[in-house]
Amino acid sequence: MSAHNVVAEAFAQTRYPLGGHGKRVVQVLKDVLDEVEGTVEGDLYGSGQLIEEFEAKLAAYLGKQSAVFFPSGTMAQQVAMRIWCDEKGLKKVAYHPLAHLEIHEQEGMHKLHGIEAVLLGEKDRLIRLEEILHLQEEIACLLIELPQREIGGQLPSFADLQAISAHCREKGIRLHLDGARLFEILPYYQKTAEEVCALFDSVYVSFYKGIGGIAGAILAGDTAFTEQAGVWKSRYGGNLISLYPYILTANAYFDQRIPKMGLYHEQAKELAALYNECHGVTTKPEVPVSNMFHVHVALPKERLEPILAAVYQESGVGLTHYVRETESGTCYFEISIGDRYAQVPKAALHTAFRLLNEHIQKL
Amino acid sequence: MSAHNVVAEAFAQTRYPLGGHGKRVVQVLKDVLDEVEGTVEGDLYGSGQLIEEFEAKLAAYLGKQSAVFFPSGTMAQQVAMRIWCDEKGLKKVAYHPLAHLEIHEQEGMHKLHGIEAVLLGEKDRLIRLEEILHLQEEIACLLIELPQREIGGQLPSFADLQAISAHCREKGIRLHLDGARLFEILPYYQKTAEEVCALFDSVYVSFYKGIGGIAGAILAGDTAFTEQAGVWKSRYGGNLISLYPYILTANAYFDQRIPKMGLYHEQAKELAALYNECHGVTTKPEVPVSNMFHVHVALPKERLEPILAAVYQESGVGLTHYVRETESGTCYFEISIGDRYAQVPKAALHTAFRLLNEHIQKL
Repeated sequence: MSAHNVVAEAFAQTRYPLGGHGKRVVQVLKDVLDEVEGTVEGDLYGSGQLIEEFEAKLAAYLGKQSAVFFPSGTMAQQVAMRIWCDEKGLKKVAYHPLAHLEIHEQEGMHKLHGIEAVLLGEKDRLIRLEEILHLQEEIACLLIELPQREIGGQLPSFADLQAISAHCREKGIRLHLDGARLFEILPYYQKTAEEVCALFDSVYVSFYKGIGGIAGAILAGDTAFTEQAGVWKSRYGGNLISLYPYILTANAYFDQRIPKMGLYHEQAKELAALYNECHGVTTKPEVPVSNMFHVHVALPKERLEPILAAVYQESGVGLTHYVRETESGTCYFEISIGDRYAQVPKAALHTAFRLLNEHIQKL
Repeated sequence: MSAHNVVAEAFAQTRYPLGGHGKRVVQVLKDVLDEVEGTVEGDLYGSGQLIEEFEAKLAAYLGKQSAVFFPSGTMAQQVAMRIWCDEKGLKKVAYHPLAHLEIHEQEGMHKLHGIEAVLLGEKDRLIRLEEILHLQEEIACLLIELPQREIGGQLPSFADLQAISAHCREKGIRLHLDGARLFEILPYYQKTAEEVCALFDSVYVSFYKGIGGIAGAILAGDTAFTEQAGVWKSRYGGNLISLYPYILTANAYFDQRIPKMGLYHEQAKELAALYNECHGVTTKPEVPVSNMFHVHVALPKERLEPILAAVYQESGVGLTHYVRETESGTCYFEISIGDRYAQVPKAALHTAFRLLNEHIQKL
């Protein structure tokens, strides 16, 4: 058994796995369908009450004129980039070096649209306001991800966001929000989604991160934008005859979990503090600004893994199911708080962290 | 109320709607999920037992090395065209003027890939063998749709298909099968899917036509082809975190309805014969070669519509929920036989056709 599997195996045996809402199993869909009448008509190629009502609900929530449900955020965001590039007649956009479009989409935006990316800032930190203000290259669109997932879920100040937005409007640069985890940061900003989205021309949100749905995304903006988005959705083969399995679950879990985003944030802060008390362990950010953060451990992956497995066996608490190496020989993993956290008894949690700290210090 | 709605409204009231498997309602999903354990793990970004087993099952059924599940046929076929164009370094493919890629995809293939289409044959008939043999223009791929849906579901002879395949292999042209309704034509050809697909380099099949699933498609070919298809699926944003609602339904209804394709074909022939006995009514093809055909009526749309509504009210049988105009001022509609047909009492069916014929002749 590989070292990776030691952690995964031990995690799978724990009584109290700690992150997320639970396993991605069929029950997630069954729970929602049990509450839906079988006679409800599915959406048909983007039309019908089921999809149109959800799109209208999210448009209102995000404070945008209109919204289009997409099967995935990858598709939605490439479409947004293309629309803004076509508008300006310039195939160039800017984003963080660890943007989803840059590292998780197999160069889709470039291969399908010929759009070039200008990478702003550095991999290990947020884009700085001055890097945007002093950008020399002409671009059609700037994409900002809130929070920046690959660096633990970090956020610029809201004042910086406002300055970025004002700058882009002045310069005729479209501003797009990668809001894969937008719902999750609203408690920190103490803003409504509408207040955040007002700074952006187009917005994408996801339904299988903090919301815990099965898949699916919304792309929102003004009507001229979403009409084009609908055409591109067809071109991509994203205008499925029926998307209702995703819409029904997105809608149900949205209603269920939007009110809990503040709780997840508080729990993330509580958990990050426990990590930061451990020897050689730090979280990024130190104080989470959403339900997520990264845990960095000043040990090689191979040394941390047996420790985690031991902690899980002794405490019954599963902290993470994997550990990833960093370039500098240390290791890290990502935490996203969901419904599971509240089910972990505090005593077991504190036992786990006491053990983790002891095991690390024994090395 | 518009004339269109007269037919749709009357159809909605009928006791015996005749086409398809039934309404596209949530029950279609619930019926399948009731038989699936909640603990079954969903697929994760294209991996996992649930998706891999279904892909392997369909690869075996189609007689191909490998298969990839796609959210839609639009995406799958554009990807196939791109792969074959890249292979040859030539962005040109050929297909029928009423191919799905040409008329239902908002120029997706051209806008996303810059691929040009050579249209073969005429809109009102199949591509002829000699049009392929004598094609002067160089192309990377020829797409053949079996059956050709937009002309009522027509088929070339199997001997012609074999000749097309041999020609393409000799000339280094990749041959792709648009098999949106492949399952439905096997009883006519008296061939296995494997025997038909052996003539093609790549094959797409759909799960929401004769199979009656919710959405989804399979793209199959050799492993070198499907590996690339998987990468393009990611680029398109089609590699959703979970596609299991579509896979579970595709699999269940595949098992349920594949054995019924012969029955659907016989029923289509029976129903077409009833239409052809009516004054001024002809079907295309005259004798169906699948579960589908088109019904052409030598009347303006506005004159047929009240007749249909009257027939539905008097007989309780719903023949079609819409009528479409042709360019020559007559009208037509499409029939696809599914599970509903067997539920229509023969007496009611014959009453409906007697009434239809009488109403038309009274004009």
